[in-house]
Amino acid sequence: MKSRAAVAMASGAPLEIADVDLEGPREGEVLVEIKATGLCHTDEFTRSGADPEGIFPAILGHEGAGVVVEVGPGVKSLKKGDHVIPLYTPECRECEYCLNPKTNLCQAVRETQGKGLMPDGSSRFSLDGKPVFHYMGTSTFSNYTVMPEIAAAKIREDAPFDKVCYIGCGVTTGIGAVINTAKVEIGSRCVVFGLGGIGLNVIQGLRLAGADMIVGVDLNPGREEMARRFGMTHFVNPTEVGGDLVPYLVNLTKGGADYTFDATGNVKVMRDALECAHKGWGVSVIIGVAPAGAEISTRPFQLVTGRTWKGTAFGGARGRTDVPKIVDWYMDGKIEIDPMITHTMPLEDINKGFDLMHKGESIRGVVLY
Amino acid sequence: MKSRAAVAMASGAPLEIADVDLEGPREGEVLVEIKATGLCHTDEFTRSGADPEGIFPAILGHEGAGVVVEVGPGVKSLKKGDHVIPLYTPECRECEYCLNPKTNLCQAVRETQGKGLMPDGSSRFSLDGKPVFHYMGTSTFSNYTVMPEIAAAKIREDAPFDKVCYIGCGVTTGIGAVINTAKVEIGSRCVVFGLGGIGLNVIQGLRLAGADMIVGVDLNPGREEMARRFGMTHFVNPTEVGGDLVPYLVNLTKGGADYTFDATGNVKVMRDALECAHKGWGVSVIIGVAPAGAEISTRPFQLVTGRTWKGTAFGGARGRTDVPKIVDWYMDGKIEIDPMITHTMPLEDINKGFDLMHKGESIRGVVLY
Repeated sequence: MKSRAAVAMASGAPLEIADVDLEGPREGEVLVEIKATGLCHTDEFTRSGADPEGIFPAILGHEGAGVVVEVGPGVKSLKKGDHVIPLYTPECRECEYCLNPKTNLCQAVRETQGKGLMPDGSSRFSLDGKPVFHYMGTSTFSNYTVMPEIAAAKIREDAPFDKVCYIGCGVTTGIGAVINTAKVEIGSRCVVFGLGGIGLNVIQGLRLAGADMIVGVDLNPGREEMARRFGMTHFVNPTEVGGDLVPYLVNLTKGGADYTFDATGNVKVMRDALECAHKGWGVSVIIGVAPAGAEISTRPFQLVTGRTWKGTAFGGARGRTDVPKIVDWYMDGKIEIDPMITHTMPLEDINKGFDLMHKGESIRGVVLY
Repeated sequence: MKSRAAVAMASGAPLEIADVDLEGPREGEVLVEIKATGLCHTDEFTRSGADPEGIFPAILGHEGAGVVVEVGPGVKSLKKGDHVIPLYTPECRECEYCLNPKTNLCQAVRETQGKGLMPDGSSRFSLDGKPVFHYMGTSTFSNYTVMPEIAAAKIREDAPFDKVCYIGCGVTTGIGAVINTAKVEIGSRCVVFGLGGIGLNVIQGLRLAGADMIVGVDLNPGREEMARRFGMTHFVNPTEVGGDLVPYLVNLTKGGADYTFDATGNVKVMRDALECAHKGWGVSVIIGVAPAGAEISTRPFQLVTGRTWKGTAFGGARGRTDVPKIVDWYMDGKIEIDPMITHTMPLEDINKGFDLMHKGESIRGVVLY
């Protein structure tokens, strides 16, 4: 079949709209009609060429929602008509990782997914007879896309695609970092670095977890209003702090924060986040993706005196289990998504969506098919 | 009163044996006759001048055991004749830190202790009328020493001073890193870097915790036999590994270790320890004290993919509560200490004890008063 898609033809090039060829689902796969997809920094990281593991030509996109239109042989947990959110971190429930309660990093299809292929080692996409690679196992920048059954979370049918697509990455990553990775307790004092599409979700995760103090740190004063809406109690603009940021934040949090989160991807900020965590028990969680080759560093004394340095991927969430719950939270009004989706656009305008991201004007841009 | 002591007169100088003047205990303090004291790398770190916070002249030593000979006004939990182990990490049971179950870093006397003084801001030691500083609040290189009541753990009277003094630092630090900080579970696969006086205790802690695989890493082949005696199941000498150490250890532990421990103080080793921890759930604990200004570093990807970087001080132990229990474990034969105490000496030979440490010939040297 044909599918309208935005194709990353080469590293650094703008996406090109094309009608690609798409094969139907094979054993254990499903064909999904994507109804909406968010634009995430990780897509841009790969498109721009900054991602050393980027493969081209490829169809990017990993934050979608849609409807199953066909299932391949052997698929049992999904059927035609099911509403789903594609999962770049699948959940097979059988591998060593899925069976270990300490991690969400299912390894069932990791190797082929990293090569831009389906689990049988081939691509379903092609253009002019030449293969086009999948991306993160999801490729939601195509109106129709194929993915393994284990990489699709079935969700309720009354959830709006144009909002819950965001749960496919940003919402789950931010909220999950708080509740799955950090396991923040009621009454905690917390600092969030970076108030973009992930940081705002960390903030609403902290509100959900009952944090007493939610400090947001961002260079962009335009982020303050939105962050306060989601639960931020104190805003700090590093350019307005006289002197070093770390002692300022330690003082503000009365000795350091119980939990800190980096949602910037800047390794210098990651260090600040660790060092403003409380001596004795502070935990700092890295969420952001750093540039290739960049390294974090600190004096080991920071850890020996009781700070813990962690990271999170997809918010520690097990997609097929946790994503439907987060959709429920949205539908029940426990969390908000709508105000964060600041721009929508047709697929043809997807490059404009990335421009808005670069200008810092959008929190989340969403393509509606 | 007079007390025979080994005094660090100046940064880098050998210790000098002298009869120092010692004032009796003031409010909340106790006078202890030290019966035995271990020589630890931390003492040598300060003596050598490598410790940027070293203060001279001072009486070093922090791994002792002895008997209370006098108590100051207001002391309630100790009396004359009690056997005690001095605590460089006290336990007041009242400060914000003691009341937080996540940490053992009691802050009650931190500020004065760091300045080489008792809590009232003065020193009890002097020589030729000039003050001599305390060290880590313990100064066990003096036959008689004064410390705060909260910095002495009462232990059973049948425990031999010349062995249980080691519980004042090395034993508790190593075993505590396993059971308090890492919380190692039965069946875990673990790697310990550095098989000296701390690393061997990490190993016996891992045996106690029921680890399946206990890999020891050391450049000194002479450490193997002793480490095996304490529970090491695999020995790795990095000079005998063809190629990089990290992939070798990842392969040996079938994907990475559940828990790794650095007991070397070398920041490059600390990185290796983190990176050979298992993706998804591996935890690496820094125990060693690094040189001034040295920094640890890694790619944040190592944390984002599920590794956790922690540190430990005094093995996360609350001294007055936990040290007596560890003394019981020794007396009950649950842990061994005797084979690790490879050399004993009178105070007059203390500098020879440090020479043995430098040559790598001793695991622990102990001064017997």
